Amino acid sequence: MSDSSAHPESGPDTVAATGQLTGILRRIADFGASVEGMFGEGDHPAFIQIDRLDGPVHAVIDGRKTTLFGTNSYLGLNFDPRCIAASEEALRKWGTGSTASRVASGNQNGHVVLERTIADFYGRPDAIVFSTGFMANLGTICGLASQGDLILYDSHSHASIIDACRASGATFKPFRHNDPADLDRLLTEATVPASRILVVMEGLYSVWGDVGAVKDLATVAKRHGALVLVDEAHGMGLYGEGGRGVTEAQGADHLVDVIVGTFSKSVGVIGGFCVTSHPALQPLRFLARAYLYTASLPPAVVASARTAIGIIKTDTALRAELWRKAERFCRSVQALGYQLCAEPGPVGSIRMRGKAQGLDMWRSLLARGIYVNLLIPPATPGGKVLLRFSVSAAHTDEDIDTFLGVLSDLTKVAQIA
Amino acid sequence: MSDSSAHPESGPDTVAATGQLTGILRRIADFGASVEGMFGEGDHPAFIQIDRLDGPVHAVIDGRKTTLFGTNSYLGLNFDPRCIAASEEALRKWGTGSTASRVASGNQNGHVVLERTIADFYGRPDAIVFSTGFMANLGTICGLASQGDLILYDSHSHASIIDACRASGATFKPFRHNDPADLDRLLTEATVPASRILVVMEGLYSVWGDVGAVKDLATVAKRHGALVLVDEAHGMGLYGEGGRGVTEAQGADHLVDVIVGTFSKSVGVIGGFCVTSHPALQPLRFLARAYLYTASLPPAVVASARTAIGIIKTDTALRAELWRKAERFCRSVQALGYQLCAEPGPVGSIRMRGKAQGLDMWRSLLARGIYVNLLIPPATPGGKVLLRFSVSAAHTDEDIDTFLGVLSDLTKVAQIA
Repeated sequence: MSDSSAHPESGPDTVAATGQLTGILRRIADFGASVEGMFGEGDHPAFIQIDRLDGPVHAVIDGRKTTLFGTNSYLGLNFDPRCIAASEEALRKWGTGSTASRVASGNQNGHVVLERTIADFYGRPDAIVFSTGFMANLGTICGLASQGDLILYDSHSHASIIDACRASGATFKPFRHNDPADLDRLLTEATVPASRILVVMEGLYSVWGDVGAVKDLATVAKRHGALVLVDEAHGMGLYGEGGRGVTEAQGADHLVDVIVGTFSKSVGVIGGFCVTSHPALQPLRFLARAYLYTASLPPAVVASARTAIGIIKTDTALRAELWRKAERFCRSVQALGYQLCAEPGPVGSIRMRGKAQGLDMWRSLLARGIYVNLLIPPATPGGKVLLRFSVSAAHTDEDIDTFLGVLSDLTKVAQIA
Repeated sequence: MSDSSAHPESGPDTVAATGQLTGILRRIADFGASVEGMFGEGDHPAFIQIDRLDGPVHAVIDGRKTTLFGTNSYLGLNFDPRCIAASEEALRKWGTGSTASRVASGNQNGHVVLERTIADFYGRPDAIVFSTGFMANLGTICGLASQGDLILYDSHSHASIIDACRASGATFKPFRHNDPADLDRLLTEATVPASRILVVMEGLYSVWGDVGAVKDLATVAKRHGALVLVDEAHGMGLYGEGGRGVTEAQGADHLVDVIVGTFSKSVGVIGGFCVTSHPALQPLRFLARAYLYTASLPPAVVASARTAIGIIKTDTALRAELWRKAERFCRSVQALGYQLCAEPGPVGSIRMRGKAQGLDMWRSLLARGIYVNLLIPPATPGGKVLLRFSVSAAHTDEDIDTFLGVLSDLTKVAQIA
């Protein structure tokens, strides 16, 4: 990767006359070499290629039937016939894409109805739909906070929250993960008025799979008078009576000013949203550059998202089925001697002893038709090597038995737990 | 919008006890009031609702048949039957969404093939596909430049470029729009080595509709030894023999290190990409947080994008047809006495004398079934009020005649030119 001689189209100007890379090119090439060294020979986690899908969690990888325990299709809705039919109808009526921002090219009816659907789902009057969940955080956080404001965010927050903090122009500091006392300390020490402070956390953290201390943190934030934003990207569809997420499950709705979420996990497509009850926040749409200056979601995506949210809202049996499978899977993994990062749930991580063990286990599972996510530092909080798994309502009980059987076999062979 | 009394779910903690808004809420409410004041009574440009589409540029708005001259569907491919069929097939085979990042959940075959398609189209070995064009700039620019680096960007650059600069951690400065001498001055004055400088510009600027001075600017940048990135979001499909954009049209490919683009304009769906020939830049994928930490594009979008790029590559007659219509339209608008911001082309803006005239003209056109974009400061470079239009290959000659007829009538009545 550090071969500097061949940029066929650029000629000699492109690299320094010495033939040595410098500056930006050097840094990126060095980084590439370090990534390569990290994984050595064999299957590379970032380059697995799925040749075919036979449903939300059944794939063919490298000619081998493989069960996916590493998607975010918690409810299997990306293959729900109702969602696919809604997309097909929208494709025929509205074409493949909107080709522009809603501000520039008008609001298609579907976008407006989707906003009403998501606002109703969350029981809040205002919703804004974004083109990705990443952009929902970017647009909402940058729209809320700017220079002179302070953002306090949970130290395990998703990359999109960190990048939004950076782009906002506000000052930003992490508080210790799920630690109300640390948040309290930062709020007390803050030199700006509380009305200029935004506290950001997640409902469900998708690496460890642990639930956010939403109610406790939001209570502290509200006592100081700060605004509270909760990202329910992974919690939506999984937690709460109505499937609205961890905020709902903890009875903390009244403490949260803005909820952000995504359509790319349980909802099964792509896109994101924010909802709020603050009349004062209605103009947020016009301050969210990641809303104003980007093409809106394709009509087929919008139609499918609407259908999926309707299913999440009404089909509580599907959610119960997911939890039954998730708990059985997690308890069995623990019974094999493995340590999970959090309480049993639809998403979690198994701690590995180190990189070699993690990579070996990940490759061994893949070779036996089980796909999970290998996560290594610096992408993991706490610096641990993790096998991240997700359980889906679309997994059969046999799928789960198969995974547990393979894991048991590998454990015996490798003394790996 | 500044009613602070009613946040039904949050109780008295949410707003200051005085009932007065302060801090973040105050700023956003004030901004909202200023936006409301800007447009007064009547149709609001940001809230136009499209009830039905009868093709890429034919809509029903408020019960009235309306011809859209404000999309970015330059080639009409969002309603191309081949693109729709490709999407439908992908929906049935691959479901509505991928539900995760490609790094976390594996690469679907379609994503890999789309990357090869776009790399081939640009004649460069490496391509990365992003989930939106906005995120293509964000991921690529933040992946390339970081703290200690310098980004010099054209002062008319898109919001996604500015936000990427902010999020990157690098120092960033604008150079005067399309001004190689000003870029030269900034490069000469720079206190970091040229190998740590990234020069960013666009191929086609989508507000004025003017072509970037890509070759002249890139020549200056390369003389100093800086890296060059060109955003061909709007140029792709419109400029160059092969439809690759302004860089190709100016014969500047060999001077440009990275090209960024989008699938949401001519390609008709959503998504973005970057391509490069630098072997040293292959690891960029692992540095682009907006690639790593976001769900990949839905399979139906991927399939449609691939089909559309194939059409753009081969159907030069479609491009010629677009240009014939665009030039006829622009010349006729000029003949009515209006001043365009740039040379005739598929996208451009008509200068208005001020906000009142612009708003009046925009509403009068809409009432007569013609939809264009009203752009007002601060969203416009140069601080002018503009009517932005786009011509599409999907416009019939009659559509164009109708627009010109209406414009002529309004001009006579209002002495508006």
